[in-house]
Amino acid sequence: MPPDDLVTMEKIVSLARRRGFVFPSSEIYGGLGSAYDYGHYGVLMKENVKDRWFEAMVRERDDIVALDSAVILHPRVWEASGHVTGFADPLVDCRFCKRRYRADQLEDAECGARPSKHPGETENCDLTEPRQFNLMFQTRIGALEEAGLDAYLRPETAQGIFVNFKNVAQIARRKPPFGIAQVGKAFRNEITPGNFIFRTLEFELMEVEFFVPPESAEQWHRYWIDERVAWHRRYGLRESHLRVRAHGPEELSHYSSATSDVEYRFPIGWSELEGIANRGDYDLRAHTESSGTKLEWVDGEERYVPHVIEPALGLTRSLLAFLVDSYDEEVVAERPRTVLRLHPQIAPVKVAVLPLVPRDPEMSTRARNLYEELRRAVVAEYDDSGQIGRRYRRQDEIGTPFALTVDEQTVQDETVTIRDRDSLAQERIAIAGARELVLDRLAREWKTPKPD
Amino acid sequence: MPPDDLVTMEKIVSLARRRGFVFPSSEIYGGLGSAYDYGHYGVLMKENVKDRWFEAMVRERDDIVALDSAVILHPRVWEASGHVTGFADPLVDCRFCKRRYRADQLEDAECGARPSKHPGETENCDLTEPRQFNLMFQTRIGALEEAGLDAYLRPETAQGIFVNFKNVAQIARRKPPFGIAQVGKAFRNEITPGNFIFRTLEFELMEVEFFVPPESAEQWHRYWIDERVAWHRRYGLRESHLRVRAHGPEELSHYSSATSDVEYRFPIGWSELEGIANRGDYDLRAHTESSGTKLEWVDGEERYVPHVIEPALGLTRSLLAFLVDSYDEEVVAERPRTVLRLHPQIAPVKVAVLPLVPRDPEMSTRARNLYEELRRAVVAEYDDSGQIGRRYRRQDEIGTPFALTVDEQTVQDETVTIRDRDSLAQERIAIAGARELVLDRLAREWKTPKPD
Repeated sequence: MPPDDLVTMEKIVSLARRRGFVFPSSEIYGGLGSAYDYGHYGVLMKENVKDRWFEAMVRERDDIVALDSAVILHPRVWEASGHVTGFADPLVDCRFCKRRYRADQLEDAECGARPSKHPGETENCDLTEPRQFNLMFQTRIGALEEAGLDAYLRPETAQGIFVNFKNVAQIARRKPPFGIAQVGKAFRNEITPGNFIFRTLEFELMEVEFFVPPESAEQWHRYWIDERVAWHRRYGLRESHLRVRAHGPEELSHYSSATSDVEYRFPIGWSELEGIANRGDYDLRAHTESSGTKLEWVDGEERYVPHVIEPALGLTRSLLAFLVDSYDEEVVAERPRTVLRLHPQIAPVKVAVLPLVPRDPEMSTRARNLYEELRRAVVAEYDDSGQIGRRYRRQDEIGTPFALTVDEQTVQDETVTIRDRDSLAQERIAIAGARELVLDRLAREWKTPKPD
Repeated sequence: MPPDDLVTMEKIVSLARRRGFVFPSSEIYGGLGSAYDYGHYGVLMKENVKDRWFEAMVRERDDIVALDSAVILHPRVWEASGHVTGFADPLVDCRFCKRRYRADQLEDAECGARPSKHPGETENCDLTEPRQFNLMFQTRIGALEEAGLDAYLRPETAQGIFVNFKNVAQIARRKPPFGIAQVGKAFRNEITPGNFIFRTLEFELMEVEFFVPPESAEQWHRYWIDERVAWHRRYGLRESHLRVRAHGPEELSHYSSATSDVEYRFPIGWSELEGIANRGDYDLRAHTESSGTKLEWVDGEERYVPHVIEPALGLTRSLLAFLVDSYDEEVVAERPRTVLRLHPQIAPVKVAVLPLVPRDPEMSTRARNLYEELRRAVVAEYDDSGQIGRRYRRQDEIGTPFALTVDEQTVQDETVTIRDRDSLAQERIAIAGARELVLDRLAREWKTPKPD
């Protein structure tokens, strides 16, 4: 089955909703444009993606330390960084119908108010000159009018890293090349959010700012592109759905001297999954100039402003890619099933324990005991609701790699069946060894069974 | 040594800064009132506190599921919840000097502008009647003026849970008593933030909304008070530093029918660590009325609006309590040391590996290999910078439970010393068994060596 023809955004949205991964936010109040809430499995899966990222970027390395800076920073941070003037979209208004558009997205500028000379047709809007609309959410700190301060919600976590550069470098006793990692919420007042959780007003970013000697910046830029592609591959994204694309000069951000996107083949087409920018010395210089604090590397005679390589991945965009890539439908024994072939480390639940006849006390006691043993080691689920086939389908749809079923034979010989999500193979194994076997299989190297 | 006389907030602030737990935010721009950034050890420690909370509240239970809702919800959520009208502090202004005060905190209302009849003295302010100042941060969604929406940053995560009640109850197949857990940022435009990370404008909340049949609400309220006190005790807070205090009728929040605070003896005095509120059916009824969606429990003939018990803990306030409770100073062999006697599960780093003479290749190779082995299992640190005594002091100050030192004898007999942070006992153990021994000791039941 060619998955590319199969996976539509509608199917992902529907599964995510049906199984409690992602709900439209504020739904009982009619929703709030492009905002989403994450249900139980969404939370577990997000935590897995975050953990694997943090492991690869911080725990497995000696050259990156963690930081968690505030969402609301001093407003001068955003003046210095160029966001107050440069982080904007060009907007135009229609003089007749008052609609507002992005100046670079004018395909549907059909006026709702302007009388047409041709009955039944609509006239095009009569547009003003473009004005810059800043994408930062604004707020105000303080009840004291004289001391109140207009402030912004951060549109990226990076600036919180730059302004802490000196503190961290001193205390962490690190010299370049070294990096600072941060995971946290960012907010952008997007004119055109959409495509489910691909672009939302608030989103979690996982960013590293990696500080290097200027002469090695290009080399480190290539290094980080390769590293990040390898990470997405490691957790199951298929090679044929990933590509690297360098930005043309006209699409570079105001701070960037070179950016490459790791693109993924989403149902909406090839789109940015992760951006890897060479920010040069733009930010450290800007904050040095603005604050008067020298943000540079000094060691004896050596003194320079490090250049910065930034791999920046949206957490929920990564989650969306994992959902899309793992989504599969197939017909088994004339019955259709939907399955998320997620990497076991990304799957929200690792193993389910199912008593075949839940009301049978012999079965339910054994199933319960096995579940209690397993949950101490991994995220497990006890599932005793509905027909066994329905329970398997539920576990398939949330991507649970293994299901252990307690049946009549279990009561006789203390064995259970283990069902493999991907191959659907079922084996009988001893209850006594079930925990070890599950842990062992979860730790095995895993590769998606879908064509690469 | 009586710790209560010893631990001042200044000492905690100083250690947190010196060792990279917590920095003042936007420091190079002069700071931003009460905002803080968390450094490497602060991030690791926060993650530990969060994990232990999530484990106790979600992973170890079958009756609580997770949720992660948006920070910016539909503004009608906050109208229905009563926050738009009720979540406010009373403020008064001085007609002369224009200073603004909380009407309930007027001790220092000394006028800076009003001429006094008595030279050298100051006159009291001439105050206006109190006005209500809402504590929610406001912002605005959307660049389209006609479709733009005034919105709020959530001051609590609870409302995101209530508006998802129906979705979650259906999909999670749960009936009361069951709960929904959420960890996330909240924002309050406090008039009087302060006391380091005790009260900040933005902070992470860990909340459970536990839905119960109305007749069992009081019983569940008591249950959750006991559970939460046990959790704080489990991770090391001393009994003599914890107490439970029921709110008087005049201090109850607008939604609460009963609240008990778990109070901790902070350096600023007994103060709220965690609030456990009985919110009754206030919120579900309010959102039912406002949205038209019935938020109730229905099962055949059974139909009722559940009551809600809410244990709500501030993550960084919990972190502050752990820092305060574990802080210790002592003199050992005539040399003073500062040590964080943190529970091993809360400590940011579990074990440090120290080559006695870092330049000795025999020692550094063995130390490096041991470190690589340990870090695959737990958060470990390789520390080869400075005198060995200085390295021990550093590890003591970040609360690392164990330090393994590779010395000359290691090169001869493949043993290392293991140093216990609390007792300072040193033993020689075989490198081959070091990993198992460290894991075993970390998993042991732990009790603070400080007087309870």
